[in-house]
Amino acid sequence: MTDSRTAVVVGVGLIGGSVGLALRRAGWTVTGVEKSAERRAQALAIGAVDVAVTPAELVAVAECDLAIVAVPVSVAAPIVTDLLAGGAAVVTDVGSVKGPIAAEVADSRFVPGHPMAGSEQDGLDGASADLFSGATWVLSPTPETDDSAFAEVRQVVASLGAHAINVPPERHDTLVAVVSHVPHLTAATLMRLADGRAEEHRSLLRLAAGGFRDMTRIAAGHPSIWPDICAQNRTAIVEVLDQLVGDLSGLREVVAEGDEAKLLAHLEGARHARRNLPTTAPGAEAMSEMRIPVLDRQGEIAAVATLAADLDVNIYDLEIAHSTEGPRGVIVVLVETAMAERFQGGLMALGYRPSVRALD
Amino acid sequence: MTDSRTAVVVGVGLIGGSVGLALRRAGWTVTGVEKSAERRAQALAIGAVDVAVTPAELVAVAECDLAIVAVPVSVAAPIVTDLLAGGAAVVTDVGSVKGPIAAEVADSRFVPGHPMAGSEQDGLDGASADLFSGATWVLSPTPETDDSAFAEVRQVVASLGAHAINVPPERHDTLVAVVSHVPHLTAATLMRLADGRAEEHRSLLRLAAGGFRDMTRIAAGHPSIWPDICAQNRTAIVEVLDQLVGDLSGLREVVAEGDEAKLLAHLEGARHARRNLPTTAPGAEAMSEMRIPVLDRQGEIAAVATLAADLDVNIYDLEIAHSTEGPRGVIVVLVETAMAERFQGGLMALGYRPSVRALD
Repeated sequence: MTDSRTAVVVGVGLIGGSVGLALRRAGWTVTGVEKSAERRAQALAIGAVDVAVTPAELVAVAECDLAIVAVPVSVAAPIVTDLLAGGAAVVTDVGSVKGPIAAEVADSRFVPGHPMAGSEQDGLDGASADLFSGATWVLSPTPETDDSAFAEVRQVVASLGAHAINVPPERHDTLVAVVSHVPHLTAATLMRLADGRAEEHRSLLRLAAGGFRDMTRIAAGHPSIWPDICAQNRTAIVEVLDQLVGDLSGLREVVAEGDEAKLLAHLEGARHARRNLPTTAPGAEAMSEMRIPVLDRQGEIAAVATLAADLDVNIYDLEIAHSTEGPRGVIVVLVETAMAERFQGGLMALGYRPSVRALD
Repeated sequence: MTDSRTAVVVGVGLIGGSVGLALRRAGWTVTGVEKSAERRAQALAIGAVDVAVTPAELVAVAECDLAIVAVPVSVAAPIVTDLLAGGAAVVTDVGSVKGPIAAEVADSRFVPGHPMAGSEQDGLDGASADLFSGATWVLSPTPETDDSAFAEVRQVVASLGAHAINVPPERHDTLVAVVSHVPHLTAATLMRLADGRAEEHRSLLRLAAGGFRDMTRIAAGHPSIWPDICAQNRTAIVEVLDQLVGDLSGLREVVAEGDEAKLLAHLEGARHARRNLPTTAPGAEAMSEMRIPVLDRQGEIAAVATLAADLDVNIYDLEIAHSTEGPRGVIVVLVETAMAERFQGGLMALGYRPSVRALD
């Protein structure tokens, strides 16, 4: 009876809109709740919802098989409560911190969730029924959550093409502090430190090469979401920052004492871990990095990528390392080692001078 | 009389080989000094040197107009001394730390240097006469350095297409600690911290998204150069690590106290600084980021980059954000805002669903 099921999506941005598109494609009837008139119109226009209403009408439309709350993490809890009170059979949310909402809304029909794709702050432009295809979607049931409600949300998440994993709320929050929140705060801190040191002579920041640019890239993002996240996930962030400060202080001693063996062990451990970070690409032992010097001009990426496609070489990763000034850059691609020689030959035939290094 | 000048290049790897290629193109006669027989043969084969000799022959060939020492930073000083004793008119080096060698070799004919391109540890494969075209090349003269020796090296650096900047040795070392050495140590520390936290359940690192991958990418590099760098630049690295630990501890207090205004000011400052990092691209205010959902399959980058070239849209940066698992990814490109609409239209005509966000 899939074709008669009803969903309510609250907050029709990138995530809510994509959920709406995917559910409607699967035969659900979807009501969108959205405060922005422009977004309501856009959601109807792209077919993300069957009906779009304002938040004032939330309780009136709440009775449904499944409600998905896709609003910023700090404002989700009361909406979940209203939906439960209004008759939603099962409610889930998509916020990036799970502990507080799991504690605040302890209800058998509430299944806290967090899809690792997009952000609830982004707009509808990139919404797609396939947004979650292949993505990881964390479900963080509370002790009160019914098994049947959990199973229902899990089944819907799977039907969207995502891979559901079950992680308790506190564990989820510590992990996102480790892999997202604290790295972001660290990037901002490194960037400010460098900026302060170069104050009297900013052009010296031209010494900052690709590694520094990579590390601080996320610091260029808009800070508006961070007060919410830091407030919601304060405990985990403070605890992880304490560990980071302790670890860096320990490394400072290693450098100060010139303990070469300890330094190498630290860096080797990091290298091993980084190379084993889960990814879609084959393991690092099967991959090679190719560096292709180019002029920073139009068409170079196209020429390189087209050649790869022509030669049946899959590019797993590609980045452009610009020189700090001037017209020169390097295209860095990650390919399977088995294909590297063929690709190198093709590139040399086109006049490029690529270097190849196995990631072993 | 350019065509009669003689150079000695010690260490024929990526940097030494590229210097050799560029000098020979400009009419110099170049003698390479290299301990690896394989590299000597390769250097001759690609035309990076006219003659290749072993380190045992160094003093015998040292008499020349200019000697460039392109060996790892920890072994450069005695070679510089030997070259000066052997009759080289002017000597420069390319090591990534400048204070110790500047102190050790206080000679009027020695001009410490550091090109911000490639590494003296890399092999000849990527060597190119154009490696330094547009790159920044730091010269760090000591109080003993002759003006004429400095002017000579500066002129040669300019003839290689690089932009020479004059930075005192200690200032150089602090800056590279800030923008390279400490960021590298921090990336390794973050990676190890995450790895330790996920120990009992590594698949949870699937929660690590693009920002974490960016921040820890450099930790995947081979650690062999770091003991040398940390030993040579110990004072600056320890001092900058101390500041980083202090800054992170301060930020920890801001988060613990929930001081939203201070947190926003910190992140806004970082954002402003990151967007003003010197680069070849136009200023951030003129750029837009486009996110193009794709399946992780061959040909997608080629299709996107070819369209950009066809539409006269310059791609300033491109990265592939893979989903943490499954076949889906997002190509993220940086283009001028003025061109974003045209590019978006073309992409939509090909069936892509790109989103656009101005970096303002």
